[in-house]
Amino acid sequence: METPTALIGVDWGTSNLRVMRISAGGGLQEERTDPRGAGGLAPDAFAGVLAEVAGDWLAVDPPVLVCGMAGARGRWRETAYQPCPAGLEQLARGLEQPDAGLRRHIVPGVAAFGPDGELLDVMRGEETQVVGLFGAGEGGVVVAPGTHSKWIRLEAGQIVGFRTFMTGDLFRAIREATILLPHGGEPGGDDAAFRRGVERSLSDSAITAALFSVRVDALAGRLPPESAPDYLSGLLIGAEIAGAPDARTSRVYLAGASALAERYRIALALAGFGDVVAADVSEVTALGLWRIWETARP
Amino acid sequence: METPTALIGVDWGTSNLRVMRISAGGGLQEERTDPRGAGGLAPDAFAGVLAEVAGDWLAVDPPVLVCGMAGARGRWRETAYQPCPAGLEQLARGLEQPDAGLRRHIVPGVAAFGPDGELLDVMRGEETQVVGLFGAGEGGVVVAPGTHSKWIRLEAGQIVGFRTFMTGDLFRAIREATILLPHGGEPGGDDAAFRRGVERSLSDSAITAALFSVRVDALAGRLPPESAPDYLSGLLIGAEIAGAPDARTSRVYLAGASALAERYRIALALAGFGDVVAADVSEVTALGLWRIWETARP
Repeated sequence: METPTALIGVDWGTSNLRVMRISAGGGLQEERTDPRGAGGLAPDAFAGVLAEVAGDWLAVDPPVLVCGMAGARGRWRETAYQPCPAGLEQLARGLEQPDAGLRRHIVPGVAAFGPDGELLDVMRGEETQVVGLFGAGEGGVVVAPGTHSKWIRLEAGQIVGFRTFMTGDLFRAIREATILLPHGGEPGGDDAAFRRGVERSLSDSAITAALFSVRVDALAGRLPPESAPDYLSGLLIGAEIAGAPDARTSRVYLAGASALAERYRIALALAGFGDVVAADVSEVTALGLWRIWETARP
Repeated sequence: METPTALIGVDWGTSNLRVMRISAGGGLQEERTDPRGAGGLAPDAFAGVLAEVAGDWLAVDPPVLVCGMAGARGRWRETAYQPCPAGLEQLARGLEQPDAGLRRHIVPGVAAFGPDGELLDVMRGEETQVVGLFGAGEGGVVVAPGTHSKWIRLEAGQIVGFRTFMTGDLFRAIREATILLPHGGEPGGDDAAFRRGVERSLSDSAITAALFSVRVDALAGRLPPESAPDYLSGLLIGAEIAGAPDARTSRVYLAGASALAERYRIALALAGFGDVVAADVSEVTALGLWRIWETARP
């Protein structure tokens, strides 16, 4: 007999949606994805999209816990950012109900503040992966690659600081709107070109100049058009690693989609990171949602 | 009686065209501009566009000297890059005639090579400004802001090295294709926001992370949408100056359109550059074309 579902988990990103059946204890039983991301939905559209995608999973009226951009201003229901240091307790205390009476809750994001109380950085969604990766009292560094990559530091089970890099967003903007990739394309075909890009950025701190090497290398005949996306991806990921807080002496947990995470693994190795552990985003998000739910017991 | 025209000068950029009447000695007498840049023209279209824009100026069959992207591969006629160190003599020797028999010549670009002979960087057009700015034997640094900003070092009248920054191209790409400027807009309205952007980049070497502060500052309520283009421009120009070869002890000549050059002047002052001289691009291009012409005497 199948283990019963204890929680429906939702990771509602800007550009897509993932709904998960989660067992007591946080195991991921099944997941469904949908392209209707939070970025394109009005506040009153969320409940209907969720009902469609989760479908029969909602028949028994299970509790639903949502992380990600559904909690951003102007989306399903805004949840206040929890300030660093933030761990399970703070996230559990910050849950918000978008529809009174229904067992649906949204996880708050986390904000980093500077010494004078000024807002430094924000996240929505990665905090849930982090509490899925780390038990109480643990520490380390999480790298969450993507449109807006995050480098997150944990101490004693608390997010103590983090930094956002525009890596994925810049890759797409440079491809679409500069002279560098006139033929477009996706990275993934030329590992050697990717590595050259990473090494270039690791040894050249001026990324806005190093980017011009995409054009110069093409002019010189050493970068064929089909390899240019790999080289550009290497330049931007290399610049991210070069600019990130030095974490070479910490274990680094790498959370992300498999092909992208593999490129980060290669780049981190080139940069001298010796202890990198890959994590499955769906599994850690499911476990994180379960832990927040269990802590809140709303 | 008006001084006779000795040379018709043409600065054919990627996205626009400037045609000038130049007197013996290199004085700019009159100029006309046109939006038909070299980037959108087939090789056989250049002569006709020039005839239209220069019009009556060509009636007496004056010599015509062209610099810029008209000499790029696939444009009017490709001119080989002259390797650094390059000065008046090298530029004059590298002239090419697109139409045999007509008194029209194209100035070559300049290329920088690394220690193993590998191509490092290229320019087309700025070399002519540089020889208009400096007499034989002079030295200094030229900053030519724009889509692809150049920092150019001269010693004893020769271009000895230079570096290209994607500053203008990145500004437009980030505005058009990332989440940072959802309301678009042009810089120019908020000097204080521009200065904050410059100072941020001068103190933070990770520009791909610092860019995310456009979003964070907007969330925090300290960056109104109409000031975001100024702040973004400051971030990118600050990153250029932070990554440029240190030239604080040299006189810096700033060549560029007036509003943009004024922003660079502010940013260079914030970065501690004490000796910055602004130069009119049309005038130095006219003088540079004349000097190349006089040296070549074709």
